[in-house]
Amino acid sequence: MIIVPERSIAGLLSAADCFAAVEQVFASMARKSAYNFPVIREAIGHAGALYGFKSGFDRESLTLGLKSGGFWPSNMTKGLTNHQSTVLLFDADTGQCRAVIGGNLLTALRTAAASAISIKYLARDDAKVLGMIGAGHQAAFQLRAALDQHPFERVVGWNLHAEMLGSLGEIAAERGVPFEAVDLDRLGAEADVIITITSSFAPILKAAQIKPGTHLACMGSDTKGKQEVEAKLVSAATVFADEVAQSVTIGEAQHAVAQGLLAEVAIIEIGAVINGTHPGRSSAEQITLFDGTGVGLQDLAVASAAVERAVEAGIAFDVDF
Amino acid sequence: MIIVPERSIAGLLSAADCFAAVEQVFASMARKSAYNFPVIREAIGHAGALYGFKSGFDRESLTLGLKSGGFWPSNMTKGLTNHQSTVLLFDADTGQCRAVIGGNLLTALRTAAASAISIKYLARDDAKVLGMIGAGHQAAFQLRAALDQHPFERVVGWNLHAEMLGSLGEIAAERGVPFEAVDLDRLGAEADVIITITSSFAPILKAAQIKPGTHLACMGSDTKGKQEVEAKLVSAATVFADEVAQSVTIGEAQHAVAQGLLAEVAIIEIGAVINGTHPGRSSAEQITLFDGTGVGLQDLAVASAAVERAVEAGIAFDVDF
Repeated sequence: MIIVPERSIAGLLSAADCFAAVEQVFASMARKSAYNFPVIREAIGHAGALYGFKSGFDRESLTLGLKSGGFWPSNMTKGLTNHQSTVLLFDADTGQCRAVIGGNLLTALRTAAASAISIKYLARDDAKVLGMIGAGHQAAFQLRAALDQHPFERVVGWNLHAEMLGSLGEIAAERGVPFEAVDLDRLGAEADVIITITSSFAPILKAAQIKPGTHLACMGSDTKGKQEVEAKLVSAATVFADEVAQSVTIGEAQHAVAQGLLAEVAIIEIGAVINGTHPGRSSAEQITLFDGTGVGLQDLAVASAAVERAVEAGIAFDVDF
Repeated sequence: MIIVPERSIAGLLSAADCFAAVEQVFASMARKSAYNFPVIREAIGHAGALYGFKSGFDRESLTLGLKSGGFWPSNMTKGLTNHQSTVLLFDADTGQCRAVIGGNLLTALRTAAASAISIKYLARDDAKVLGMIGAGHQAAFQLRAALDQHPFERVVGWNLHAEMLGSLGEIAAERGVPFEAVDLDRLGAEADVIITITSSFAPILKAAQIKPGTHLACMGSDTKGKQEVEAKLVSAATVFADEVAQSVTIGEAQHAVAQGLLAEVAIIEIGAVINGTHPGRSSAEQITLFDGTGVGLQDLAVASAAVERAVEAGIAFDVDF
């Protein structure tokens, strides 16, 4: 059994590795070769924790396993991150436990890879301005992956607490891209691509604020009740998702679907665009929206890549289990 | 993170350890301090495998985690057991992965502990003859745990393939207890306690075959459709279960409940008897039946005991994770 500790992940996986791993598994999902098992999510009644598992199997890569973990709100006071994740991979031919991998950084990387993939397949090729809504821990990962993916010329950002935008400004500066903190009207009017990555439970961005041709990657909604953009904006867009079942229940599309503004069958799996079975964006004016809810197969895909890299690098820690 | 490999388990845990661990968690379940999360069980469409997770949390012992694993029907040809299990424990205060433990032997031990617990709390004190129905791999564990628990004077056994009963005879001989292979009529007429541990999908034992005062531990039914005893026998008994929700859906009681012969509310959690909130057996003539379906919390309880023993013995393998 191979152990890849949390501290090793940063040195092992490039953004390109994560992009490739997530792109492959989204495509496999759309080919019905990979599927996510039901999600377990429990408020355990101790330490205010939410705990659970995301799991699945990809028949193409023979990746089988789960990400176990959750949210412990008091961890920060102990010097630990509130989100704690561990990935387990199993041998699909025998069921034996193959690897245990630290899952905290992997979760951030696979989430960032998903919005970057949506930009590759859905944004206009001539997109110049990236808009960031949200400036927390995860926003930095989304911004880096987006700048890796597309030659944006400028970044504009908005956050409920504007003082937090400095961290995004620093990342943009590292890449030599100008950054400006703006209000939501300017952000919507100027951005060609918008990434929302907040933990909001009420719409932040309105349909009237964006311009035709915009691509939105809504990455924050992963729970019933969460919402980042107006339902009317979702219904005005052509909606793509990592997994349609999650999109309509816990994703950004849940509200538009519940209000009858969007039909579940109208939501397109992003994997179908990657596979070429769906054309993706159909016009320069079309508004595209990617609902990134986060699926277990993403975690397994990047964890599997981490194990491969660890073995290649000769730093895989192999325990006789 | 502590690693306890499969090969270490046998030397670490006594039957008494497993009995105590499972007894504690059954009691905690009945006090509503411990609960099992929904079970995930998936036919993955590869290697004929059934794969899934059982998980839960015990607030009293702060045991949090999951058993991951499943059934790979071709493993035998590779020199591996068909059932493959791994247990993960998490720190209930922080969500960090605390231990990874080989789960194959643990599964056998916790299942054996459950029927032994039912004998302690439900069988007549003057029970002399133990009847075993089934003689596969797991039957040996049930027999050992039953003989550890109660001073049986004789064992009678039946199996579809009678030639397999020799293994049970050897175990009885080791303990100095006479063993005899019998037909089902004799088994029911002579046994004071009967353990059924088969993978049957049709009733083996009939109501007319047993005598008043018998205690039955039905340990084989853990899936929709499985059945070891006649529904009429279940309805004639006072029924106890590890978990009522599993008893009525995948346990031995599923058929009696589906046929309207038994009400779900009539099934008693064995933990209530352990706690003393239910008196258990009410008369010498009463037929008692324990429906042992197997819950994740049992796995976590014995795995946690294994980690404790490994630490005490100084053989815990600690990985900086």
